[in-house]
Amino acid sequence: MQEKKINLKEREMPTRWYNVMPDIPNGVEPPLDPETRQPAGPEKLAPIFPMGLLEQEMSDKRWIDIPREIQEIYHIWRPSPLVRANNLEKALGTKAKIFFKYEGVSPSGSHKTNSAVAQAYYNKQEGVKRLSTETGAGQWGSALSFATHKFGLECKVYMVRVSFEQKPYRKSMMNTYGAEIVASPSSDTNTGRRIIEEFPDTAGSLGIAISEAVEDAASREDTKYALGSVLNHVILHQSIIGLEAKKQMEIAGEYPDVLIGCCGGGSNFAGLATPFLTDKLEGKKLKMIGVEPASCPTLTRGLLAYDFGDVARTTPLLYMYTLGHDFIPPGIHAGGLRYHGMSPIISALVREKIIEPTSVHQLECFESGVLFARTEGIIPAPETCHAIRAAIIEATRDKDDPKTILFNFSGHGLLDLSSYDKFHAGQLQNYDYPEEDIIAATRNLPRV
Amino acid sequence: MQEKKINLKEREMPTRWYNVMPDIPNGVEPPLDPETRQPAGPEKLAPIFPMGLLEQEMSDKRWIDIPREIQEIYHIWRPSPLVRANNLEKALGTKAKIFFKYEGVSPSGSHKTNSAVAQAYYNKQEGVKRLSTETGAGQWGSALSFATHKFGLECKVYMVRVSFEQKPYRKSMMNTYGAEIVASPSSDTNTGRRIIEEFPDTAGSLGIAISEAVEDAASREDTKYALGSVLNHVILHQSIIGLEAKKQMEIAGEYPDVLIGCCGGGSNFAGLATPFLTDKLEGKKLKMIGVEPASCPTLTRGLLAYDFGDVARTTPLLYMYTLGHDFIPPGIHAGGLRYHGMSPIISALVREKIIEPTSVHQLECFESGVLFARTEGIIPAPETCHAIRAAIIEATRDKDDPKTILFNFSGHGLLDLSSYDKFHAGQLQNYDYPEEDIIAATRNLPRV
Repeated sequence: MQEKKINLKEREMPTRWYNVMPDIPNGVEPPLDPETRQPAGPEKLAPIFPMGLLEQEMSDKRWIDIPREIQEIYHIWRPSPLVRANNLEKALGTKAKIFFKYEGVSPSGSHKTNSAVAQAYYNKQEGVKRLSTETGAGQWGSALSFATHKFGLECKVYMVRVSFEQKPYRKSMMNTYGAEIVASPSSDTNTGRRIIEEFPDTAGSLGIAISEAVEDAASREDTKYALGSVLNHVILHQSIIGLEAKKQMEIAGEYPDVLIGCCGGGSNFAGLATPFLTDKLEGKKLKMIGVEPASCPTLTRGLLAYDFGDVARTTPLLYMYTLGHDFIPPGIHAGGLRYHGMSPIISALVREKIIEPTSVHQLECFESGVLFARTEGIIPAPETCHAIRAAIIEATRDKDDPKTILFNFSGHGLLDLSSYDKFHAGQLQNYDYPEEDIIAATRNLPRV
Repeated sequence: MQEKKINLKEREMPTRWYNVMPDIPNGVEPPLDPETRQPAGPEKLAPIFPMGLLEQEMSDKRWIDIPREIQEIYHIWRPSPLVRANNLEKALGTKAKIFFKYEGVSPSGSHKTNSAVAQAYYNKQEGVKRLSTETGAGQWGSALSFATHKFGLECKVYMVRVSFEQKPYRKSMMNTYGAEIVASPSSDTNTGRRIIEEFPDTAGSLGIAISEAVEDAASREDTKYALGSVLNHVILHQSIIGLEAKKQMEIAGEYPDVLIGCCGGGSNFAGLATPFLTDKLEGKKLKMIGVEPASCPTLTRGLLAYDFGDVARTTPLLYMYTLGHDFIPPGIHAGGLRYHGMSPIISALVREKIIEPTSVHQLECFESGVLFARTEGIIPAPETCHAIRAAIIEATRDKDDPKTILFNFSGHGLLDLSSYDKFHAGQLQNYDYPEEDIIAATRNLPRV
């Protein structure tokens, strides 16, 4: 009988990350220096990122060794299981085979730890003492809190206010790992103070929190900044998801017809999907679906253009799908997907029609999450519910089609249970934007 | 290199439970009918338990097959990993090898699911439509909520009030699995109403919640009662923990010198320890340590006597270590350990000096839990912190002694993070009882 869960041995864990950059058809546009509007070299970013990560950010090497120390920490939870969702299949009455790569086994409960450990390592290597960062739902902040403590670094987390209030246990987790947490906008930075003054009731956004964390890092000698998604080096670190999954699907005797992941900044989906890219380019029939919330429809309704990664316009300009850097999405409960922009890598793959973006609504996502919990046992994070929703749509479009679906289960929802409470109580709603709001939001894109 | 985590394949999962009853030296005293004071036969318990479980409760067969349907649900998370806590060892500077059996991978986050699935199955087999139960910390209630839904049964959970208030996410989890939850004492039962009237501010206790759940089951045709610990059939189901661990330790090339588990009703520790019993009886040197909170010192300071399992005196009399059935422990945060009694099996093994009981204080437990989280990543449940604390004591008593320690990691603490908050904020304290309180508590034991 086929095993439900496929576990690799630690010695089978990949020892190199895959860098998709050299394999992207027509390449990825470089980041621009916002002052000169010329490509931003590493020197521009050196004040906030360590050289080890900047080299990865700009590397065109296809394979990059995972340092031994990082591998050892990965072994706390990796290789992560590949699981056949046979109970969900049965409930759906479908002949489709649904597999998920379960990233919820990490200490902080999501894929984020894959990059957090790597980022803490390279910062430690270069003598950095302290990291600042932002977090949406709290997954990234928790992951970095754990990782920095492993390397003896301090950590300050700016957590988007709406999530800070909705998810008090995230704060407890970060405290337990030894980090300092503040709600963003905060009174600890100039940007934060300015925004509180102008919008005292703001729910906050990832764009604001990034500005605060960058300002924190830029203003202190001992501190650098860490970003949990979007950038190339983050997607590099996440490639371990797809590399493992390929091996595990082979053991299962299957190859996916459809790959699915939710997209906020894009790193969990890119981590699963990019190691399959060359197969697709070589002609393998493989649908890649990036799922975003209808309430923050970056890929499905945004523009492909140069834009800032944050509200205060402190980052380089990134060429990406964007809703405009001052777009503040409604306080939906999938805090990790509330980002105006998108990874340039994912953006390029959407432009090349390699990744198909789609959007789903909040209520159907929670419904899917509850069905998943009741059949497969694991309560998914609201972000992950988006991937599950898309997997269910694929699996039930034609129930007699025995296709193979693989989605990335980016994280569990045990610290998001208050969102489920609101769902059970009928207090959640869907959001849709009229076209004019999207047009207005993207009106202020910088001219390049 | 030795792998940190040892995973068994699903096909290597034990297909039989081990029943320790025939192997306990001098046996276990039978439960008594409280009216006649004669051994209580199955007919006495049939109104609240299905025959399938009563047969197991009274069985003297050493091995009992695990039905196929239960095995299939176990495969959602079982076999659970055996993990070498090498990062903790390093932080302690000890030559001891520390292993833990990680039961936190189950849907509801603890070992409780092992018995919940079995109990739901046997009830379903006999046409039961609805189960009632109590829960302390919420681990058992969550597990039964998940399991009953898998078999299409309804579930009502009476949750000890102090935990109900401290752990709102447990309620969300049970709701997500489709169960009904109420704080105990509740106004839904006679016992609950009587206690609320007498002690309107009570924190509740497992003894009260059991009375309510038993009353619920006894008063409805379609309902039976489910107990998450203490009884023989529960310990039978939990034996899968130790059976797997034995195989995994063998793969690791190790045999434990010390086995450790926390004890509330006793099922998680018994599940780990009992499959090692015959080795010990055959002369293997093996220390077995049952750890309880100093604030509820059943094994270390209680009496071995016949007592009721609940406050309202509705259960048969069990021969066990007890603090007296109307003992209400302080509202410490390890809700699962707040029980006045103890499994008769564990009690017999303590009487025979096979298991050594010990008690630890709350603050040192949380300290140990935080150290564990920062080194091994996983945040432990407050109950599990007791086992970790004892493992640390064993590993550091003589740091040059290369002994092998195996403890049961009964559950993760992701839904207990508010307790960690209180710990970080310095709001927790230790509890100790003067001798006269213990004497007073055990004054009302029934005469047999």
